Parts: sequence; C-alpha cells; structure tokens
Amino acid sequence: MTIIQPSILPGFMELLPADQLLFNDIKKIIEDNFIKFAFLPLDTPAIEKDEILFAKGGGETSKQVFSIQKKDSSRDQSLRFDLTVPLARYVAQYESSLTFPFRRYQIGKVYRGERNQKGRYREFYQADIDIVGRESLAIINDAEMPAVIYSIFKDLGLEDIKIHINNRKLLSGFLKIIGIDNSEALFRLIDKIKKISTEEFFKEMKQMGLTKDQQEDLILFIKEDDNDKILDRLKDIEDSLHEGGGASDLFMEGLSELRELYKDMHLFGVNKEHIVIDLSISRGLDYYTGSVYETFIDGYESIGSVASGGRYDDLASNFSKQKFPGVGISIGLTRLFYQLTEAGLIKNKRINYIDAVIIAMSKDQQEAAIELAADLRKQGIKCQIYSEEGKMKKKFSYVDALASPYALILGENEIRDKLISVKDMKSGDQEMLSFDRVLEILKK
Amino acid sequence: MTIIQPSILPGFMELLPADQLLFNDIKKIIEDNFIKFAFLPLDTPAIEKDEILFAKGGGETSKQVFSIQKKDSSRDQSLRFDLTVPLARYVAQYESSLTFPFRRYQIGKVYRGERNQKGRYREFYQADIDIVGRESLAIINDAEMPAVIYSIFKDLGLEDIKIHINNRKLLSGFLKIIGIDNSEALFRLIDKIKKISTEEFFKEMKQMGLTKDQQEDLILFIKEDDNDKILDRLKDIEDSLHEGGGASDLFMEGLSELRELYKDMHLFGVNKEHIVIDLSISRGLDYYTGSVYETFIDGYESIGSVASGGRYDDLASNFSKQKFPGVGISIGLTRLFYQLTEAGLIKNKRINYIDAVIIAMSKDQQEAAIELAADLRKQGIKCQIYSEEGKMKKKFSYVDALASPYALILGENEIRDKLISVKDMKSGDQEMLSFDRVLEILKK
Repeated sequence: MTIIQPSILPGFMELLPADQLLFNDIKKIIEDNFIKFAFLPLDTPAIEKDEILFAKGGGETSKQVFSIQKKDSSRDQSLRFDLTVPLARYVAQYESSLTFPFRRYQIGKVYRGERNQKGRYREFYQADIDIVGRESLAIINDAEMPAVIYSIFKDLGLEDIKIHINNRKLLSGFLKIIGIDNSEALFRLIDKIKKISTEEFFKEMKQMGLTKDQQEDLILFIKEDDNDKILDRLKDIEDSLHEGGGASDLFMEGLSELRELYKDMHLFGVNKEHIVIDLSISRGLDYYTGSVYETFIDGYESIGSVASGGRYDDLASNFSKQKFPGVGISIGLTRLFYQLTEAGLIKNKRINYIDAVIIAMSKDQQEAAIELAADLRKQGIKCQIYSEEGKMKKKFSYVDALASPYALILGENEIRDKLISVKDMKSGDQEMLSFDRVLEILKK
Repeated sequence: MTIIQPSILPGFMELLPADQLLFNDIKKIIEDNFIKFAFLPLDTPAIEKDEILFAKGGGETSKQVFSIQKKDSSRDQSLRFDLTVPLARYVAQYESSLTFPFRRYQIGKVYRGERNQKGRYREFYQADIDIVGRESLAIINDAEMPAVIYSIFKDLGLEDIKIHINNRKLLSGFLKIIGIDNSEALFRLIDKIKKISTEEFFKEMKQMGLTKDQQEDLILFIKEDDNDKILDRLKDIEDSLHEGGGASDLFMEGLSELRELYKDMHLFGVNKEHIVIDLSISRGLDYYTGSVYETFIDGYESIGSVASGGRYDDLASNFSKQKFPGVGISIGLTRLFYQLTEAGLIKNKRINYIDAVIIAMSKDQQEAAIELAADLRKQGIKCQIYSEEGKMKKKFSYVDALASPYALILGENEIRDKLISVKDMKSGDQEMLSFDRVLEILKK
C-alpha cells in the first residue's frame, strides 16, 4: 500500500495533548466567565450564504474567504470570517423569539486566508460576547465588557493588564470642534500613533491638510497622561464649550458616556490601576460609534491587544429595518494561546487531566482492576486501567508519560488483603491502603 | 439600504437559546464522561488536504464532500466528513510524541452534503472516543466502550438502553465453517435483517448462491435469543469444532473475545439487562474486524443506533507502516439531539443558566446594582442587571422570559436599610433580606 505523508495545511494550529489540555483550560476559563456574567450560548453554522457574509460589500475580507464548492449545488456559500455577521443575521432572523437586551456568547472557529506568518492562523477561535438592545441600550452595558475582560485575565493568572478605553464620539466631536469634518482617514492614522514616529505623524497630518493649529490641538488632545489629568483636560474643553466656544453635542455626549463607563467599570470590580483612558484609540473599523476598548498585558504590550471591542449603533442594518444597538468584545483565542506560549506566560503550567492509572500485576487481577476503575469513576475520579503486557518499568513509564499523580497497583497480596498499593509518582513512595483511604487521597 | 432576508442554508441546525442550552447540556454530559474515563482531548483542523481525506479512495463520501476554494491557492482541500480520518492522520503524524495506548476524545463538527431530509444535517457534531494501541491492544479496552456509552445515557436520564454487541470474527468464522467464503455482500445483507422481511432475506441469500442448508444454518445462528441461550449455542458450535467438525481459528478467537467483552463490560458497571448479544450486527463498514456495538433506546428502537463503533486492526494503514489497532465509538450528537427532541424524551427539560436578575428601581440605585452584581459574581452566582428604562411590569416580564428563578430589586428603601428585595418568580413571594441571606438562597 502507498503511504501518504501525514500532514496538515499550512497556517492551521494543531496541538499535542499536553498543549491541547492547556488550550482547553484557557477556553474553559473564558467560557466560565461568559456564563457567570449570564450570557446565553450560541452556535451558528460555520458555513453561511455569501449574500449574508458579504451583505456589507466584499472589500478586503472577500479576498481572504474560504469558498465552499459542492458537486450538486451552485449556491454561493463560504466559511464565516467572524462571529459578528452571523450574530447580526441571527438577531434579525429570530428577533421575535429573542428577549432584548439579548446577551449572547459564542466561541467558535472562524476562517481567514491571511498570508501565512508566525502567530497568524487561517482557522482560529474567536470568543465573543455582545449585548444587543432593540432601539436602545443603556450605557451601563458598556461597563460590563471591561469587567468580563478583567475577570477572565484574573482567572488566567494574568491580572497585570491595562484596559484602554475611549469613546469615538469624543474624538469625532473634538475634531469637529477644531474644524475637521471628514475624519475616517484621520481615525486610521490616529490608530497607528503608537507604531509610528512623531515626525511621521505630523507629516501625515499635514498631508491630510490639517493646519498647524489643528495638528497641535490634536496631538495635545490624544496625548498619554494620568486618567485624572485627562479627565481634567476634557473638563476644560467642556467648560470652554459652555462658555460659548461652539458647543458640540457629539463631544458632550461622548464625554458623558466616557465618564459613566469609567465610573461603572470601577464599580463592576475593575480597579483604577487597570484602566487607561486613552483618547488615541479609535479601532479603525467604521463600525464602532461609542465606547471602544483594547487590552494590553503589562510588559507584553508588543503582543498587541488581547481583547478588543466597542459600542455600535446598529448591528443588523443589512438584515432588518429594526435598529439593534449593541456593545461587544472579541478575544482571538488561538492567537492569544500562541502569544502566551511564545512569551512564556503559561509555559510551565501543566493540566492534570487524570487522577490515577490502575495497573494489574497479571491477568489474574484484571477483574479486580476493572471493578476498582468502575468504583472510582462512580466517585468522580478520573482514571484508567493500563492493561498492556510488559515489565513493571514499562508500566510505570506509561503512568509518568501521562503525568498521572498516582499509580494504583493490584497484585496477589493486594487482592488477598483487599487493599490497594498506591504509588505517589512524584515522591516514589508506595503503601498498601484500603479503598476508602485511596479515595480520600485521590479526592484531595 | 437594501434589506437582505436573513436565513441560513438548508440542512443546517441552528437553535434558539433555550434549545441551545439543552444541546450544550447534553454535549457537556458526553464530554464529562469522556474526561472521567481519562480520554485526552483533541481538536484537529476542520479543513484537511484532499490527499489525506481520500487516502482510501473516493467512493460515496467524495460525492458528499464540501470542497474549499481559495482565491490565491490551487491546493485541493475539503471539510472533514468524520473524525476518524483526522485521527488516523494525527496518530501517524505525531506517533513519536504520543503515549500508547493513546486514549483520545474529539467532539467537533463534520460535514456531509447528504440529501436534505428530516433529521439529517449537512453540518453535525460527532462525539468520538478511541483507544489506539501500537502493534497490539488488549481486549479489555473493547469493554470500556459500552461502559462509557452506558454512563453517558445514564447521566442523560435515559438509562433504559440496550447495547448490542457482537464480534465480526465470530460471524466470519461461522460463515467459513458452513462453507461461505467471500462474505462482504452477505455482511451487508445481515445488517439489514431487522429492516426486511424473512422471505426477502431468504430470497437474497438464495440469490447470493447460498444452499438451503447454509441459509438455515445462518438464520439459526443470527436468531435473537437470551444472552445465555446464545452463549450456549456458541458453546455447542465450539464443542462440535473440538470434536473435529473442522476447527476455525477465527471463530474460536471471536468467541473468546466476545466472552471477555461480555464479562468485562459487566464488571465495568453495565448491568446484564442492558447488554444484548446480537450475532446479526456487523456494521457494514469493512473497517471493523472484532467487537462491534450498537445502542438502542428502549421503546425508541426506530430512531436507530444512538452510539456505535467497534474494533479495528489498523487505523492508519494509509499514513504509516506501523500498525495501530484500536477500538472506538461515535455518537452523532446533532442527530441525537434532534431525535430526542422529536421523541419528546427531553421535551420538558429546561436549563437554568441564570440565578438572578438585578433590577434598579431608578437610575439612583444603579451604582448599588452594579456593586451587588460584582459581589454576587465573586461568589459564583450567575447574574445580570436589567437596566433599560420602563415600567416594573416590563422588567419582570424580562426576568420571566429569561426563566431566572429570582429577581433582586433595589429601591430607595432597600438602599436606606442596606437590604435587597428578593422576588421568587415562581411563587411570586417577595421579601427584603440581607446580602448574606440572599446569597444563601441563591446558592441553593
């Protein structure tokens, strides 16, 4: 028989069992938090109609999409490239059966044929939550997003994070105040501020036609600072508007929302030291209209944002005449796992998936081994029998390879005395104990 | 803006939140059992190279496959149609990094473009476990499969099941003994015995060229009966072989394996009343070589088998010269969910995903509501705030729609007295209690 070299496509992540356990552990921590915050699970199909996926128009994404071909079907269909378009479709489709505000989470694989490079995958998990209202949605919901993010990273043992917050209305409003109107290109430039030099930033502003005054006003506005100082600066602008400096409703609305977000997220349990008001973040996507968030791990800022999102005015404008404002965040789980591993942030963690391996000394003790396994599993102990033939050394090396903390050995003596030999794989200690005593040890 | 009708492709399952919770509950019960039996998780890519997927040759599956097209790639790739081919590829690819026997589980979506009909889906979850040995694998492993099946269905509240077991060697051996050699077509016929009439069965045996004696011997062999009577019948055949009736090693091997399976699965905790020795099941696939299993729910046999599998001699013959014998089962989770729902077997079940909804009477109590939510979540209580404006009636109907057992109300009086009004949504009773007392109630 011809042997075909076993391999997978480039750009796909596939893990060995020890890493898979770690990955699943992270996934579970994220999901458990989504559940604790009372989000409802969703699981939409991975394949959608192209008319749904590209309702907004093709653009960059259409070049990266994985199209589906079926022999007996000419229907245009593709793998989803995010979980947001499916959510928009779902909300519009089942509107009458859903309860609003609708809080949903979805953790699932999405597909983008990006150019193959380190840390970028063509199949990757996204972990998303959104709170979707009908017609309106209170700003308090915006404050829950950073609370979920903080709770997740705390549970991951990565509490040292900074959640950067901003409000797009504030930035748009300010630009209007200083006389800049069409700001989409400028938003994209501002998003890059941490990546390019100050000279380059000024050069590009000039190219966009900003006056010297506008350039300096903007730089001053988005400058990093203490939260309190930024809030003071914003208050000064607010006061100047009250004094007749050309009031901008948009700016005032954004400021009021940012203040509420800042206060509420603290009440939700995110300490001030983890909050950074950052007037430079705008999340290029023209889709966000209010609060925006990005999350950075202290000392590992180069990884980029590990959890991002924001407020949008209308989720499903392509699929419904009803207005669905909402707020959401997304964690790129596959990329996050890769980054945390690369940075050594979860390197030495090892997940114990098994409590004990049962070894029968010979075929004569096999029945007793089976009964022991059944009894332990009834008590919730995760265990298995090792029953392949071979020397004791081979058997113990199997237990070691599985990183099982205990081996339970059954020989003639053990059966005669109705006891079990328990070997602590770490210390090497071994003693003969009763079932109840063994259970006690394993339950610890 | 043009509104695009929101819809999904035909043949895909998508659930509303209440059903999704139920689905996830079933999925979790299955996964928890896989974990209790100490199987390692695997998560292979949903897209594989065609050379891997069709290593065995195309056949029926290639007509049903969803092929992938990427604008910038001419590589042949498709969505996986099962989890077995990816497992075979994985085992061969990472052989040197794995510990054998390798116990893995995988729960994931697979894709088959079957003709659209009720209860058949084009995207569906499979939940698989396999124990894969290198060169050899003890028969005791065959007995764990039914033990896992039984444990799962017990936890699902569907304990009344029958696990049908057989051994392909037994059937092949017997056919050899009565002088029938090439038996693949006959296996397929035997698989159909419960679906066709006795006359038709005889007619088809005759067409295959079986003599009158062979026909009657076979009918007698595969006849339904008490387990003990079948074992007696098999013993009689065994004795007749000892007495010089033309010994068949294959039959003897199969009988010995079936006896061990029958005894061991009982020791593993599957009561005899749930075991049916059924010499007629052969699982058409030419892939199985020893033990085979099918599972039926009492009174709902027409649903078909809800968990099936068997022993195979060589998992990865297309990808490695090394021999990997193994044993495994598969549960078609999406179809199972559909069938259980249709049969009304899980109809009235409702999953409580939320413990309480917090309602602030006015914006003045919003801060207290946030702090209450944060405090409760710290204690593991699943809760959310309802903060949209509106009448109390609207707020309570939201709590009802979410099926939250409690509403926690904060008004002026509650804040003043540092208490919380707790409304039991079922009884309608409402009282003002301390935080500690509320926590106590919610933890119950």
